[in-house]
Amino acid sequence: MLDRRALRAIAGEIGLGGASRPPVALDAVRLEAPTLSESAEAALRDLLGAQRLRADRNERIRHAAGRSYMDLVRLRSGELSLPDGAPGAPDAVAHPRSREELAALLAVCARHRIAVVPFGGGTSVVGGLTPLRGECDAVLCLDLDLICATGRLDGESMTLTAGAGLRVAAVERWLGSRGMTLGHFPQSFEQVSLGGCAATRSAGQASGGYGRFENMVLGLSLTAPAGRLALRAVPASAAGPDLRELVLGSEGTLGVIDELTLRVRRAPAARRYEGIFFGDFQSGLQTLRVLAQEGLTPAVARLADERETALSMAMASAGADGGGASALKDRLGRAYLGVRGYSRGCLAIIGYEGSSPERVRHAMRSARQIARHHEGLPVGHGPGEAWLAARFEAPYLRDELLTHGAMVETLETATVWSSVDELRRAVSAAIAAALAGCGTPGILGCHVSHVYETGASLYFTLLARRLIGDELRQWRAVKEAAGEAIAARGATISHHHAIGTDHAPWMVREVGAEGIATLRAVKAELDPTGIMNPGKLLAQRLSRT
Amino acid sequence: MLDRRALRAIAGEIGLGGASRPPVALDAVRLEAPTLSESAEAALRDLLGAQRLRADRNERIRHAAGRSYMDLVRLRSGELSLPDGAPGAPDAVAHPRSREELAALLAVCARHRIAVVPFGGGTSVVGGLTPLRGECDAVLCLDLDLICATGRLDGESMTLTAGAGLRVAAVERWLGSRGMTLGHFPQSFEQVSLGGCAATRSAGQASGGYGRFENMVLGLSLTAPAGRLALRAVPASAAGPDLRELVLGSEGTLGVIDELTLRVRRAPAARRYEGIFFGDFQSGLQTLRVLAQEGLTPAVARLADERETALSMAMASAGADGGGASALKDRLGRAYLGVRGYSRGCLAIIGYEGSSPERVRHAMRSARQIARHHEGLPVGHGPGEAWLAARFEAPYLRDELLTHGAMVETLETATVWSSVDELRRAVSAAIAAALAGCGTPGILGCHVSHVYETGASLYFTLLARRLIGDELRQWRAVKEAAGEAIAARGATISHHHAIGTDHAPWMVREVGAEGIATLRAVKAELDPTGIMNPGKLLAQRLSRT
Repeated sequence: MLDRRALRAIAGEIGLGGASRPPVALDAVRLEAPTLSESAEAALRDLLGAQRLRADRNERIRHAAGRSYMDLVRLRSGELSLPDGAPGAPDAVAHPRSREELAALLAVCARHRIAVVPFGGGTSVVGGLTPLRGECDAVLCLDLDLICATGRLDGESMTLTAGAGLRVAAVERWLGSRGMTLGHFPQSFEQVSLGGCAATRSAGQASGGYGRFENMVLGLSLTAPAGRLALRAVPASAAGPDLRELVLGSEGTLGVIDELTLRVRRAPAARRYEGIFFGDFQSGLQTLRVLAQEGLTPAVARLADERETALSMAMASAGADGGGASALKDRLGRAYLGVRGYSRGCLAIIGYEGSSPERVRHAMRSARQIARHHEGLPVGHGPGEAWLAARFEAPYLRDELLTHGAMVETLETATVWSSVDELRRAVSAAIAAALAGCGTPGILGCHVSHVYETGASLYFTLLARRLIGDELRQWRAVKEAAGEAIAARGATISHHHAIGTDHAPWMVREVGAEGIATLRAVKAELDPTGIMNPGKLLAQRLSRT
Repeated sequence: MLDRRALRAIAGEIGLGGASRPPVALDAVRLEAPTLSESAEAALRDLLGAQRLRADRNERIRHAAGRSYMDLVRLRSGELSLPDGAPGAPDAVAHPRSREELAALLAVCARHRIAVVPFGGGTSVVGGLTPLRGECDAVLCLDLDLICATGRLDGESMTLTAGAGLRVAAVERWLGSRGMTLGHFPQSFEQVSLGGCAATRSAGQASGGYGRFENMVLGLSLTAPAGRLALRAVPASAAGPDLRELVLGSEGTLGVIDELTLRVRRAPAARRYEGIFFGDFQSGLQTLRVLAQEGLTPAVARLADERETALSMAMASAGADGGGASALKDRLGRAYLGVRGYSRGCLAIIGYEGSSPERVRHAMRSARQIARHHEGLPVGHGPGEAWLAARFEAPYLRDELLTHGAMVETLETATVWSSVDELRRAVSAAIAAALAGCGTPGILGCHVSHVYETGASLYFTLLARRLIGDELRQWRAVKEAAGEAIAARGATISHHHAIGTDHAPWMVREVGAEGIATLRAVKAELDPTGIMNPGKLLAQRLSRT
């Protein structure tokens, strides 16, 4: 996917050696013997049968990690064990297939002091799936793949009630065949589950048009060790605090989301995605802000800074789908080359979709007008189509770069408009300094990935030479520098990746001591024995992974 | 306001006698001696001074109730004491003027076992302000009128940070002079405070365009007995559960909201409000549903059923602003009279507003088209303007009807589209049966007041002859019948009036036993001595008022 020229340029810039660093073979992964007691295993097996309580090597490795950078380092090295020496794989993997089984399973785990890690699509990039056992004696991965009732579609109310283990991609296909859409397209779209999106407050790439995942949730059911929290599906309510919002983002620490009632939409009749090129980031930012504040929030709104614009154009230029990028280059070249060189500008992708072609056309026309007012250059649908075609590819690209000895990490945040650019500069500077401090200066790109009336998210991608064998120190240096820069400016530690283990140290900065105490009180009520996903979200010590 | 002819028609239909029942004079209100201990009073006075700790008769009566039907019955009769014999006025009224004072005041109250009832605009219609003391020895009303810093406007991010005691009307005026708007127009607009709207999940009449109040809140500060919960203002976050949503709707039971950061908007450059007449409720309902699901949600969308349409036209016909209604009648008459009689149709008010006159015009044109497709008859801006002019008048009308011996109550709910009409029929039937059972058959109107993609709210207004001296029994019969009809159909017990004391018995149906336990755990953490607004929201016994 990454063409040789682009790779060579990157390798040269961040000082990669030529050696390939492929992941170890599955057989070579070191796996410790499971620690599940005989009685615990028997109780679980009684409940699920051997078919659905698995402790084989493949199954345990497959559920040993998510998709964070440090997860991948761990998996690729074949050394699953955690930095503190704890075993790095679950002792067993359970596949319950009903809510009743789920409740019974949690009761067994509470009785036998088994920590439970709920597992949906397995795509957490913040350590949300690390098989930590906390104060428990063993750890069970609870794979929700069989909690997948396709559910009830209410075509008049436009709601779908479905099992939380269903994959978003499967739901989208199912809805698509009925002329509908959920409209949720995170980068993890191909794997991620409904429950995972709910538990982590996922935001899809088209959240400007369809809302964040939490905006789609009308009703839900949480099976917790203490009992079931079932919240009815109503369009809106003033009946006290919104308990849905306590479950959304709870990351498996309170219980297991087993069913969701979601708002769906008719599949859009019209869709326009276009590129707009800005001379600088600030102009693009102002354009996005005006759009969001004038009632013209695009379904998709992305704005890459100069570095990321150059990087993504270099990467796309010779790829399978290079046509769009080449056409763009030609056009940008004609317009900008000789004036300032197209590599020094910022590319925005603006996408509108909806039921009315006329309104979509009108919105895009207004967007172009507003962009021109900020000295933006509309460059047509080529870049938009190219982006759409490649929208889920970054994780694969990351794997390839890892094999070439790179460190590849992403992190994201959000803040109000008046702080966005200063935040971008501060976080960029903090990351650059941390990388330099490790002796591995890197490439750092940033883009706005989601916009709101009051602010926007920022998404940072960094590439550097990996300190082989010393990845944890290098990663921590970057993560701590970025996290401090974010927290110090009152921005959120995560806009859509969630907390997991990686961001847990910043939760107290995010919600304060009283916020932590409140969340702990909720956990003590719903999960009194503390078996649910220990070490995530509420752990205030530094990350273990 | 109510003209003689309309009043005579109503009086005739519900069997009112001719006697006027004005409220007793202030001097005649029976008020028990305050029970605040000397030491408690001294501690509070040390903190606030005599000016801001008041125990005079006027102040205590003014803070003895909200604006529910039973509150008004209590106030008008001059018998403040509660049905169970408890005193019906707070022992004193405090006016803290800073967050620090507020925190110190809560500490004094916790130490002296004084219940605290936060008081904003005083407009609760569900008993949220009833001076219940719970397990405490006395009850203090905490008036937030001096927590009113006008705050910081961030014109780039379009956010306003302000003291929670500020009145919405004052904020709207302040913003208006700067070309901005909050866009929150509940019927209580003239009195209600920012904090009150947040604590009760208020929804303004234009919530389709501006969102419910909770949708406007980016950040907030809650001073609780256990400490301060300060949640930063970010446009969106995936950092765990959204604790803002626990504070929103908490109705003073967790602590006192003292500051809010709100999203504001530019004042709309264009505004169109028009009437559409439908032959039946179902056709209007389908029109509103299609609008909401096609991305054309009106800022204001109201649809009255046949009874309410007839009633409001009768009431408006000779009022000060009768022009619009008369013109409407003429037009409806021409179109419908002789075919079916205009009094048998359903009037909808559809309003669009926004920054772009072109988009507002286009939206209204689309709405008319969709309405015609459902056999609606657009009747122009007369009814829209008439509605706008009278939008805050209903409470005054209610006072007048009470004086004429009527029972006047409203209640509201929300459900998904596929259940709306059945819910309307069921609740209507339940109320009618309850009134008949009391020997006081009444007039019952219903309208859709807010629409969403997945459903709508229903707002019921009932008029009946008041059982003088036996109002509580009559009211309970209606309330219980309606509440059961709502809860049995999975609708919410309140779409925008909140829980207070009146809806507390239904909270367990709303969120389940585990939901109640979770809310109690949160309360135990933030308000460990249980002083905050006892008897509201979480009380599971029948209402005391």
